[in-house]
Amino acid sequence: MPEMRAVDWVHEKIRFIDQTRLPHEEVSVLTDDVLVVAEAIRSLRIRGAPAIGVAAAFAAILPLLSRAPSSTGWEADVQNAIELLSGTRPTAVNLFSALGRIRDAAASVLGTNVNTALGRLLEEARAIQAEDMEACTRIGENGAALLPVGATVLTHCNTGMLATAGEGTALAVITTAARQGKIAHVYVDETRPLFQGARLTAWELMRAGVNASLITDSTAGMVMSKSGIAAVLVGADRIAANGDVANKIGTYALAVLAFYHKIPFYVAAPTSTIDRNTPSGDSIPIEVREPTDVTRVGNVQIAPEGMAVYAPAFDVTPARLISAIITERAVLRAPFDSSIQKIFQDKVPARGGMA
Amino acid sequence: MPEMRAVDWVHEKIRFIDQTRLPHEEVSVLTDDVLVVAEAIRSLRIRGAPAIGVAAAFAAILPLLSRAPSSTGWEADVQNAIELLSGTRPTAVNLFSALGRIRDAAASVLGTNVNTALGRLLEEARAIQAEDMEACTRIGENGAALLPVGATVLTHCNTGMLATAGEGTALAVITTAARQGKIAHVYVDETRPLFQGARLTAWELMRAGVNASLITDSTAGMVMSKSGIAAVLVGADRIAANGDVANKIGTYALAVLAFYHKIPFYVAAPTSTIDRNTPSGDSIPIEVREPTDVTRVGNVQIAPEGMAVYAPAFDVTPARLISAIITERAVLRAPFDSSIQKIFQDKVPARGGMA
Repeated sequence: MPEMRAVDWVHEKIRFIDQTRLPHEEVSVLTDDVLVVAEAIRSLRIRGAPAIGVAAAFAAILPLLSRAPSSTGWEADVQNAIELLSGTRPTAVNLFSALGRIRDAAASVLGTNVNTALGRLLEEARAIQAEDMEACTRIGENGAALLPVGATVLTHCNTGMLATAGEGTALAVITTAARQGKIAHVYVDETRPLFQGARLTAWELMRAGVNASLITDSTAGMVMSKSGIAAVLVGADRIAANGDVANKIGTYALAVLAFYHKIPFYVAAPTSTIDRNTPSGDSIPIEVREPTDVTRVGNVQIAPEGMAVYAPAFDVTPARLISAIITERAVLRAPFDSSIQKIFQDKVPARGGMA
Repeated sequence: MPEMRAVDWVHEKIRFIDQTRLPHEEVSVLTDDVLVVAEAIRSLRIRGAPAIGVAAAFAAILPLLSRAPSSTGWEADVQNAIELLSGTRPTAVNLFSALGRIRDAAASVLGTNVNTALGRLLEEARAIQAEDMEACTRIGENGAALLPVGATVLTHCNTGMLATAGEGTALAVITTAARQGKIAHVYVDETRPLFQGARLTAWELMRAGVNASLITDSTAGMVMSKSGIAAVLVGADRIAANGDVANKIGTYALAVLAFYHKIPFYVAAPTSTIDRNTPSGDSIPIEVREPTDVTRVGNVQIAPEGMAVYAPAFDVTPARLISAIITERAVLRAPFDSSIQKIFQDKVPARGGMA
């Protein structure tokens, strides 16, 4: 199957797959307009915490391209782009960490001309992309090692190629394990209200030739009780310093169900999704979506007009319900506050070149 | 609000609300054709275990209406109708118990003319209807007494007027408690794949003026952890002799979630839903629906064409996860095998006139 990328930098433009058109149409958008990217993130054409981070990093650079290479005074344009992009979605921390890195890169070349700035900022955005691609590969390997041969697993939402710069997080674990011949079957939660499982994960698993069945989200409990599930695998939009995980609505219920059925519950995410400035899940802002996300499907009105709706896009799974957090650097276990602290401590010398 | 009935007997015809058209259109169908009723049950135009029972009881009589009142030899027609109707859906026991009562009534007037048979069979069908209406009222009262003032509750699927001959089962508990001023808020699971919560329960609660919010099924876990839920209330399609309950897919997951959050989990159902011939949940046949129930919503295709789907319509909740079964005769508590046995023992003298 040809390599596809949810988001990429091509000929000084951003190219992204419009995920709202999947699985029926594979439409790529090529744009040099930061407003188009901001709208695409807000409306979930680009989605998945790592993919959002990569898209935002490249998008923050776009305003430089319409300026003369020798001109200066580009800083406000980048700052405005960063502010615009920061306001698109509140929960995924990758958005803010990627934009923070672009801001820092911009600060390091303050007062230089556009040509110099562009070089530095593009280098940083490409580093974010490359690190995420590499992280996906490692997460896939680290996670696959946890699964037994013949595993039937259950997953939620979409955490694959479409959600990242690489092969995915939780879904990379599954596809990597499948290539190793370990996966007997995958149950895919459809993931209401926006059907990321039914539309995107189903599409990715069919492309990858992995044996899978789609289920409604509320079928997951019965499947855990009857179908010998070896592991539940999910991604993360933000991981707090204590190991609490914000992820797609329904993740918390799956974690409780897995706990009750004594099934390992794994969160797979790059370390860029860990936010050490968020002490616990209580501090994670949870986006609440429009009622129409729930009351309408395409052009079909489901509920009566005027019915009140509560539509959080995410929920928080407390660390105590998580068996392990699979990152690119290590498989973290409880107590998560110290295992998280440790991988970041380990990272400092490597980055500072002191090791 | 005007009284509406999901199923009724009007001028020697069956009138039913086509529930697949709700909430957008209130369409009633008037028919004297047993084939139309059988199709309506199979395609969920008529749904809800008690309503299915009432509809089937009246439908089994319809063939008599096209015969001369003084003719005989009607028995095969009734038998054929009973067989046709028995094959419509496998899980709800009310279908089989209602048809069993019509069969017994027919046996009691074997060899009589159509006029006599019609009188006896109609009397039995009307009794099934009247008993269910009365049961709904009692279930509402018995259940409301369990709820505290200011209760926020959560419910699944549709268990109201549309599912029964009366006010409902679990939803009658909620509407009765609401009239008593006890209900602060109701969270309504949308109930994938067929959206009975979003379409039907939302519609009923809006008509009844009860304060309610629609949620996706996978939001129920978060709501239980955050929103001070006083009780989870569901109906039943079949209750085994040991208290195991078959009900709409997702009920089992709710029961596990309620157990984890120490929230009372109540099943509300008439005693006609208890099948003492089914020893436990393992013996209850679980209907598996077509993939298109999950992959399509109206004319909107969600999943990729060809994606495999697992679509059980029901699941089984083991008795150990159930706080109480609210029936019209008593609120049953564990151990359910003996509490169930006891209400049927108590019933014998009352029916036999020996008390």
